[in-house]
Amino acid sequence: MHNPARPRYDRSAETGFAFNPLNRLSDKRDDDTFIAGLRGEAGARAVVIAGETPILKRAGEGLDALFSLAEAAGLGAPLDEAFLGMGETGPLFALALDLTQAHQARPDLAALDMRSIVIQGVLAPGIIGALGQAKSLFYWHSRHRFCGNCGGATQVSAAGWRRECAGCKAQHFPRTDPVVIMLAHEGGHCLMGRQKRFPPGMFSCLAGFIESGETIEDAVRREIFEEAGVATREVIYLNSQPWPFPASLMIGCLARASSRDLSIDHLELEEARWFSREECGLILQNRHPARLTCPPRMAIANHLLRAWAVDGLGA
Amino acid sequence: MHNPARPRYDRSAETGFAFNPLNRLSDKRDDDTFIAGLRGEAGARAVVIAGETPILKRAGEGLDALFSLAEAAGLGAPLDEAFLGMGETGPLFALALDLTQAHQARPDLAALDMRSIVIQGVLAPGIIGALGQAKSLFYWHSRHRFCGNCGGATQVSAAGWRRECAGCKAQHFPRTDPVVIMLAHEGGHCLMGRQKRFPPGMFSCLAGFIESGETIEDAVRREIFEEAGVATREVIYLNSQPWPFPASLMIGCLARASSRDLSIDHLELEEARWFSREECGLILQNRHPARLTCPPRMAIANHLLRAWAVDGLGA
Repeated sequence: MHNPARPRYDRSAETGFAFNPLNRLSDKRDDDTFIAGLRGEAGARAVVIAGETPILKRAGEGLDALFSLAEAAGLGAPLDEAFLGMGETGPLFALALDLTQAHQARPDLAALDMRSIVIQGVLAPGIIGALGQAKSLFYWHSRHRFCGNCGGATQVSAAGWRRECAGCKAQHFPRTDPVVIMLAHEGGHCLMGRQKRFPPGMFSCLAGFIESGETIEDAVRREIFEEAGVATREVIYLNSQPWPFPASLMIGCLARASSRDLSIDHLELEEARWFSREECGLILQNRHPARLTCPPRMAIANHLLRAWAVDGLGA
Repeated sequence: MHNPARPRYDRSAETGFAFNPLNRLSDKRDDDTFIAGLRGEAGARAVVIAGETPILKRAGEGLDALFSLAEAAGLGAPLDEAFLGMGETGPLFALALDLTQAHQARPDLAALDMRSIVIQGVLAPGIIGALGQAKSLFYWHSRHRFCGNCGGATQVSAAGWRRECAGCKAQHFPRTDPVVIMLAHEGGHCLMGRQKRFPPGMFSCLAGFIESGETIEDAVRREIFEEAGVATREVIYLNSQPWPFPASLMIGCLARASSRDLSIDHLELEEARWFSREECGLILQNRHPARLTCPPRMAIANHLLRAWAVDGLGA
């Protein structure tokens, strides 16, 4: 996931969707003349998302996510539009389109879901980051066409980074949900669980939304206690990840457990158990005797497990 | 801010609004019979908020935030209501009331704003935490009476932790905005700025909302660069704080700067400058020769400055 050309300052940079080299120029979003000028630049490009699915062009043997603005205009009128930021070769915009409409305009295009794009490695990390940014932003737009304050229709402003209500004048800003994701550990073992919706044999870190009135550390301790009945003490922050399913900020932590007794909430988890460091190593190498697996490297859970089991963090 | 009866596992516990010992019993929020049973308990209490302002009872020389449910009912029909969690002496609810209505019912009550409550130390830290939790939750309710998806009216469910649209069936959950707040430092100096709205002479850490597609560390680097023109490298997470103005999660970091050259965005900041460790020490002790000040201990900015200038973190 890591781009070797960019210095690595933190573990967050290793996770999927984290690498995003755009200069967002957020102070220019309200300058309509400036944004219009960017649209006129020869190097201007757009990524295109239909519903939740990025639309790609075929380029030789591979796939390309970058459309010229003229190409993008040929796909039909966008439902939403945003300026993502300035890249190395020019400004990057994002367009939300209707999938049927796009396919009718250009039957040669491919619609490839975000997880497949990352796992198959068909695009450069920086483009994956921009697609994640656009997907989360468009999800918010799709859920805020009306004003929560008065029920009136809202209009887009600030180059796609604000919605405004003409009726009550309320301003609405994109939403990012902070989520804690963590590995509890005790005596050389760590705690993972599985939800019913997981593929057979896959275990992952526990996770949950941070609520109003909580610190990161308190949310970590609450979620582990609620889901697995395990009391934890010290919590260490390790890394974070923008997660576009649909619009979360994953905050990865290690938490020291007081004991290994479990009391599982079976509404949340199908199973939870403790894994030795050795067993985690086998899972990460895909060599576990019972064929147990963990999420792939695009997911922060993989990096948390690796940090504890391989790098020895939290010991 | 810290309650000595509770072990301190992390720096986050030191900040204002962070201490909140309630067991939220989040898996019980959908169990109407269970929640109704809690209401019937003799130890059940409620905190009351009118607009943004907590309502307090006079109790001898002091003030008390805990109303019996019978007392609370006497204040009039609430605009919103939520179950906050189980405290040591019983379940704690929160009610949002109209201020005029509450004053008419009980002219002896005091309306004291949240900042004054914390700075004057008139309530125990655990109650302040619960008031912050309630204030953020009610702000969200007040802005989501209508469905962003279809414009229809929404109804409260899950004991105050969800709103549902009868029209399009969309579910909406409380919102918490992740914000980075950070101290850039280089060669024994740290960077603070002041906004025009600050009291004269007060400087604080830079801060800004985390956007879609960003890690915590990238948001820290972006904000420092946008506001002060300073490039930074390594970012260290230090602490976090629930901040009920109106509903943020403050994420505190230190960032190593590459140089001390400044290019200030005067739309965001009136002034920004580098401070030596010694100068920061004088500011924290309120002994600065030019009477410069920083935010009080309730604010995470104070703890970031202290961690760097006094505890030597990030060196």
